[in-house]
Amino acid sequence: MKVNGQPTRTIWLHSDGWSIEVIDQRKLPHSFVTVQLSSMEQAARAIKEMWIRGAPLIGATAAYAMALAMRADPSNENLASAYGVLLATRPTAINLKWALDDLRNVLRQVPSERRAETAYRRAAEICDEDVAICSSIGEHGLAIIKEIAKKKPARAVTNILTHCNAGWLATVDWGTALAPIYKAHDAGLDIHVWVDETRPRNQGASLTAWELNQHGVPHTVIVDNMGGHLMQHGQVDMCIVGTDRTTAEGDVANKIGTYLKALAAKDNNVPFYVALPSPTIDWTVRDGVKEIPIEERDATEVTVMSGRTKSGEVVEVTITPDGSGALNYGFDVTPARLITGLITERGVCAASAEGLKRLFPAGR
Amino acid sequence: MKVNGQPTRTIWLHSDGWSIEVIDQRKLPHSFVTVQLSSMEQAARAIKEMWIRGAPLIGATAAYAMALAMRADPSNENLASAYGVLLATRPTAINLKWALDDLRNVLRQVPSERRAETAYRRAAEICDEDVAICSSIGEHGLAIIKEIAKKKPARAVTNILTHCNAGWLATVDWGTALAPIYKAHDAGLDIHVWVDETRPRNQGASLTAWELNQHGVPHTVIVDNMGGHLMQHGQVDMCIVGTDRTTAEGDVANKIGTYLKALAAKDNNVPFYVALPSPTIDWTVRDGVKEIPIEERDATEVTVMSGRTKSGEVVEVTITPDGSGALNYGFDVTPARLITGLITERGVCAASAEGLKRLFPAGR
Repeated sequence: MKVNGQPTRTIWLHSDGWSIEVIDQRKLPHSFVTVQLSSMEQAARAIKEMWIRGAPLIGATAAYAMALAMRADPSNENLASAYGVLLATRPTAINLKWALDDLRNVLRQVPSERRAETAYRRAAEICDEDVAICSSIGEHGLAIIKEIAKKKPARAVTNILTHCNAGWLATVDWGTALAPIYKAHDAGLDIHVWVDETRPRNQGASLTAWELNQHGVPHTVIVDNMGGHLMQHGQVDMCIVGTDRTTAEGDVANKIGTYLKALAAKDNNVPFYVALPSPTIDWTVRDGVKEIPIEERDATEVTVMSGRTKSGEVVEVTITPDGSGALNYGFDVTPARLITGLITERGVCAASAEGLKRLFPAGR
Repeated sequence: MKVNGQPTRTIWLHSDGWSIEVIDQRKLPHSFVTVQLSSMEQAARAIKEMWIRGAPLIGATAAYAMALAMRADPSNENLASAYGVLLATRPTAINLKWALDDLRNVLRQVPSERRAETAYRRAAEICDEDVAICSSIGEHGLAIIKEIAKKKPARAVTNILTHCNAGWLATVDWGTALAPIYKAHDAGLDIHVWVDETRPRNQGASLTAWELNQHGVPHTVIVDNMGGHLMQHGQVDMCIVGTDRTTAEGDVANKIGTYLKALAAKDNNVPFYVALPSPTIDWTVRDGVKEIPIEERDATEVTVMSGRTKSGEVVEVTITPDGSGALNYGFDVTPARLITGLITERGVCAASAEGLKRLFPAGR
């Protein structure tokens, strides 16, 4: 999507032909800065410290990180070691493991002198595949938005609530939850987006708001506490969120707080959709609440906030009293029973084993 | 309760015998500062700009503000004018109107030369009555905590989740939702409190955490998004929240986001209690979602955060991109069907017309 009017992806090959360039998303929304990743270790750090985030982009970055590793040392030992280091960066995102497994399988079959070249090619393919998948999710989601908009009075705005950032910044381009929104806006539909700020890292207030702003989509930032009230008062026509991992029965792990919005949507008969690229489906897991391990992140994400002072400087401030600790789980699981439908690149299905099997009969 | 080891109330008569002293709660948790209120206008500003907040403390402050007004000018005109100015400071808190009506009724019956003295006496009574009410809520809530703790395995901690600040800082002393918690802690029960940070104003992270810290009650700050996840995983034994207004049928208006926690509690069979002094019951309102007007507050409460820098300075920082607006409703309504019980100064009852009538047969 566009940044300052220029079409931009979240990850690309640097003009040197081998290092990788990404947007340092920690600097958003206050400044747009790109960083060059020249080693596997640096790419691992970019994933772990969330310079980049979002399941599909994590997968794409991990794939390029494997290419950087193979360029440095294409041995079996380094292949195994890079796989291990990268897998340990983030425990919840299923795309990470998917991309690493894919690269490892491909690379094991080629001699070491061809591994670097093969890895770069495969990483580029993974990026292009992701763009195609997200565009397709956008088309299927657009059809749903059109249906909902059609039932509204003439000239009424269609209000869509989203949580966290499942926009193009979380993928290579288009996004997952935001892809239908971009397609609807580009198609001339009169839509407005409620952007949950999404504590503790504020990816809604900082990333989703920034993205929508750059693309000209009308939106309003709200605190995570407010969606329920808006739904009680008919001010939300639908919710669309992304996911880091979907189980074979349609449970969805997504940014902490998604579950609360799904409960409110159910209580107020607001359709609640989850947009997902099929690589985020984990066919080995059934009960998300019981089986998906939830990443515990650093407490300072809760106690310390980053923002821009009046003079334009970006600073960190502590918001809790000395002596009060914090606990910080990154995700929660929304049970399938609360989800109206799953929007995938192959179409829309019920959040259930049957629904998923219909679109993915081979279980992938 | 205690501050730096000293028993402290939230509002008291200054040593000059006529001006009023309150804690400037905007400065918490980073510094403990008191301010002197010497005129009705200044007291109105303290309410409107939330130097003090919490329904019972707003009522107490409004009562003293009437005393300040009568000291300056005890005429009928000034009585009517002060009533109007103070009533307009905050639209949702029912205690405000209750205290103002009480003072106006009392003052109309006495000649102007005795109005100041009468108003000071009545304001002091309102404060003492509030302390007695909160202490009584604490005792009734303590009985519930004891029952829940009894069902847990030996030596297991009882985890209580609370939203916003309904502690002693919101009242004159003890608090409402926190009164049972202080009583349980003082009685030696092994309790731990999950403190919702409570965006946008962070009253949980700044006030509830500070209070519990000062009193030595074990607690952990969490983002508002996390309670649902904790409930799904059995880490919350009960919720207790306060309320700004309760309808005759048991619906509860409280800080925005309370409704989402009540939905999660219901979905996970976690008892959800609301602690309330009976003056916050509005017997004229039945359906809270339809009838209670919800205060829309300034968008900068969402877009700008206050915190302490590494060097100890308290600064404000903007967390949204330029060009992204925000919407900020202060409260939401939790329907009675989601509430396990109402803890009042007269005992615990069901959140229903019948339950409330049983404790308050006269409708007050």
